Amino acid sequence: MTPRLQTAVSAAARDIEAVLDQLLPVTDGLERRLIEAMRYSALGGGKRLRPFLVTESARLFSVAGPAALRAGAALEMVHCYSLVHDDLPAMDNDDLRRGRPTTHKAFDDATAILAGDALLTRAFEIMAHPATHGDAAVRAELVLALALAAGAEGMCGGQMIDIEAEKQTLDLGAITRLQRMKTGALINFGVEAGAILGKAPTALRHALAGYAHDLGLAFQIADDLLDVEGSAETVGKATGKDQARGKATFVSLLGIDRARSQADMLADQAVAHLEPFGPSADLLRDVARWVVERKS
Amino acid sequence: MTPRLQTAVSAAARDIEAVLDQLLPVTDGLERRLIEAMRYSALGGGKRLRPFLVTESARLFSVAGPAALRAGAALEMVHCYSLVHDDLPAMDNDDLRRGRPTTHKAFDDATAILAGDALLTRAFEIMAHPATHGDAAVRAELVLALALAAGAEGMCGGQMIDIEAEKQTLDLGAITRLQRMKTGALINFGVEAGAILGKAPTALRHALAGYAHDLGLAFQIADDLLDVEGSAETVGKATGKDQARGKATFVSLLGIDRARSQADMLADQAVAHLEPFGPSADLLRDVARWVVERKS
Repeated sequence: MTPRLQTAVSAAARDIEAVLDQLLPVTDGLERRLIEAMRYSALGGGKRLRPFLVTESARLFSVAGPAALRAGAALEMVHCYSLVHDDLPAMDNDDLRRGRPTTHKAFDDATAILAGDALLTRAFEIMAHPATHGDAAVRAELVLALALAAGAEGMCGGQMIDIEAEKQTLDLGAITRLQRMKTGALINFGVEAGAILGKAPTALRHALAGYAHDLGLAFQIADDLLDVEGSAETVGKATGKDQARGKATFVSLLGIDRARSQADMLADQAVAHLEPFGPSADLLRDVARWVVERKS
Repeated sequence: MTPRLQTAVSAAARDIEAVLDQLLPVTDGLERRLIEAMRYSALGGGKRLRPFLVTESARLFSVAGPAALRAGAALEMVHCYSLVHDDLPAMDNDDLRRGRPTTHKAFDDATAILAGDALLTRAFEIMAHPATHGDAAVRAELVLALALAAGAEGMCGGQMIDIEAEKQTLDLGAITRLQRMKTGALINFGVEAGAILGKAPTALRHALAGYAHDLGLAFQIADDLLDVEGSAETVGKATGKDQARGKATFVSLLGIDRARSQADMLADQAVAHLEPFGPSADLLRDVARWVVERKS
């Protein structure tokens, strides 16, 4: 990560943490265990890549800070809910996430299911709230785009395919579609959200969509490489799991070297899409390069 | 159920079934198991009380059919997702729902979790879609109100309290709050949705909110009575469970007779709130009376 990206990501992560904290207020009611589990699941972790994409893409269109931070926090809640549900015993059965016990280990399965449900719901509440944007058309568009990215045609559908993939061997086309849905859709939405907030012209939306598409795929290939090459200690979650389950990944289909060069090529392509934005997109360029070089 | 209510409810249920069918299209993709589980969870069952409340309240403000049916179908998806997640082994561990195997029994736990997640997400997609209403302010308001009703301050929070209630004895105030959140919030939203779609004036919104509040509580007290007095065969799900778990309910706190008269009183109160609407609200009046008299 370049020093300027490191500085910007750290600052944005602090901002997002503060907004998440404010959007998940503790309560005295009997439902406080739910709020605690939502806070445990959403606060204090991760690089906050997706909200960073929201704030950086919003900055290209001079969107004021609070709007992008709220939209970024909502997107992060969706990401966190998906991790909570994916980690459940009925799904991936993971005990460790970001170096901490997963939500169902720290609480219990029922609370984790509900906390995920409530985080997803809160995300839509935030997108639809007038505090996020004064223009209702922007709010409705944010909700619609987020729902499409997170639902059966996006993340949930990708997760279903990922489970089905344990029963059959997927080819490269199927793996690409799976990952575009499972991981790519939310990353795409992060970049798209800035364009929605900034009421960006169509041509610039398309340029950003191209960037997001290549970034998302590069991100996933790098993730597959980390699963093979990384250790649980540095990656912060269990590694080697795909291989142990005999699941097809970009790495198992392409081999390490071709997967690596494919990821690098996608990062270059992602950067090329940002040409219309000039130097104001430099941090988004840095993100694309970092995504394929990261060690965790 | 009065004959006119029976006729109207049956017709509305058929319409909602058709809209749900259309809003959950089958797919050829590898994610088809998810779509099948969503369809299994949402189609072919229930009295569709919540969507009926949407279409009937919308009719008070002369809202065109498709808008209310789409909003009603979205609300029904949220109701169905909550049943799918509540039935999971980690939650209520129910095998039977509407006389059929629950979703996790017909599919598996992971698919049921994902199907619930995707139904919830699809509901927000529908609310935010221009096909539901041409005015983005209405769409954003529908999303916001639904999220508040379904989330940590509403249904999810109520479900958490319900789980916590197995560890401690709740008094009547706490039970009332629990049920207002767990069951009442979605019923309230059903009535509210019609007012939002119809851009109803504040006074009429308040009247409808009063109706919905009393209706929701009456509904829950009647549910508690059915749990004690009904059989699994007629009710369509396991009965006697609250008692077996030693959970406080309106019936355990008030006794059968007082619970019955409280439910009747609330139904009368609900009807009284509808006075400003004249005969056009007759079916909503019938609903209030039916809710406390039903045998399933």
